[in-house]
Amino acid sequence: MTTTGLLKPGERMDDLERNGYKIIQTPNRFCFGMDAVLLSGFAQVRKGETAIDLGTGTGIIPILLEAKTPGKHFTGLEIQEESADMARRSVAYNHLEEKIDIILGDICQAGELFPKASFDVVTSNPPYMNDMHGLKNPSDALAIARHEVKCTLDDVAAAASALLRSGGRFYLVHRPFRLVEIFSALTRYHLEPKRMRLVYPFVDKEPNMVLIEAVRGGRSMIKIEKPLIVYEKPGVYTKEIYDVYGY
Amino acid sequence: MTTTGLLKPGERMDDLERNGYKIIQTPNRFCFGMDAVLLSGFAQVRKGETAIDLGTGTGIIPILLEAKTPGKHFTGLEIQEESADMARRSVAYNHLEEKIDIILGDICQAGELFPKASFDVVTSNPPYMNDMHGLKNPSDALAIARHEVKCTLDDVAAAASALLRSGGRFYLVHRPFRLVEIFSALTRYHLEPKRMRLVYPFVDKEPNMVLIEAVRGGRSMIKIEKPLIVYEKPGVYTKEIYDVYGY
Repeated sequence: MTTTGLLKPGERMDDLERNGYKIIQTPNRFCFGMDAVLLSGFAQVRKGETAIDLGTGTGIIPILLEAKTPGKHFTGLEIQEESADMARRSVAYNHLEEKIDIILGDICQAGELFPKASFDVVTSNPPYMNDMHGLKNPSDALAIARHEVKCTLDDVAAAASALLRSGGRFYLVHRPFRLVEIFSALTRYHLEPKRMRLVYPFVDKEPNMVLIEAVRGGRSMIKIEKPLIVYEKPGVYTKEIYDVYGY
Repeated sequence: MTTTGLLKPGERMDDLERNGYKIIQTPNRFCFGMDAVLLSGFAQVRKGETAIDLGTGTGIIPILLEAKTPGKHFTGLEIQEESADMARRSVAYNHLEEKIDIILGDICQAGELFPKASFDVVTSNPPYMNDMHGLKNPSDALAIARHEVKCTLDDVAAAASALLRSGGRFYLVHRPFRLVEIFSALTRYHLEPKRMRLVYPFVDKEPNMVLIEAVRGGRSMIKIEKPLIVYEKPGVYTKEIYDVYGY
């Protein structure tokens, strides 16, 4: 299948190194980062389970989870029409229309868009920054993806809590500097953090990402996993990173 | 100075590798661990500041902090009379009576034992375990040091909050599995976690200790530091560990 007619101006198609899947992205809007890839490696979707990704952008997380897990069905919820459209075309290109739905909609309305307690798994790679200073144009696609313009951490936790069945799992990637707020928001919505992994770019550097699994209605006890180190040395990934990228 | 007449039956005196200081311990009660040593390396007591250690045991933390920092005065609060007595004899042996006071008393009464907001720094290496199952004798010295028999995490946070001036710092070492509860207890008492370091025994193992600095009245933003790795290989500490032990 050629990409003629599939790509709009400014778009490109990237190989995901999984099942031959590809994804449509626009470099001047937003391309997926290591965050999404690491979250797809950290999240567990078991056989027969359904999952929803909140703020799915171009659909990277549902597409990777479909490739990596035995989950039954995946949904991506995205507020930006252009991103949702790209995600739908990627789903079609990969022949995943039966496995993945892309829904245009607002995380803040997720509890009304879907039946309550209807998912086994929720994932999210939400906007990280709560600081609006210096934001030139809060309607920018990039600003919406990176800053809490359209939804806050609290909104994401509330939506995950509404959508998850009791005992269901919420997988989140975020920035470590917000860890205290993250735990506070999750527990406020009965999402108990049960597993956490810090991502350190180098073994002697501060972490720049945190992966969290929270269980709807769990009791308080968290397992902090071994460090995830990204680089063996400058320019050379560790084996674990090559594995998660599918090399 | 010989140790004749200074040691009671079952006691021994250990070298602290700092300023020639020694400490009296009883191997069949409780000996200080790496936790206390790492906390003394993580905590910062600045010139002219006063510090109090909650649940000081044999006084290891005030003695190490006196050796390592330019703090003006240190207090150790301990509920067990035998431990407090050993701590006082160690203070005397090291000629630190002017710099360190050991007070016999209960953390739960700390807010009444000392004036409110009267310390710049609070430290604590509290009991880690909140699970009382299998505890044969909750009055055991060891049980009191390790399990929340006499005071809970909440009590420790409440005491630290009462004793610290606004902007003062609380340094805590604890077990990672209780991280969610720790953040929750600290923020409930207006102690905002601002700095955290996980201690991993090996680079590819789960962390077994967490060091936290919380600021009385701080705003929410935490700096997670590079991993603290204990062993280079089995039996060989990393350079950082040798440094903190004073080799």
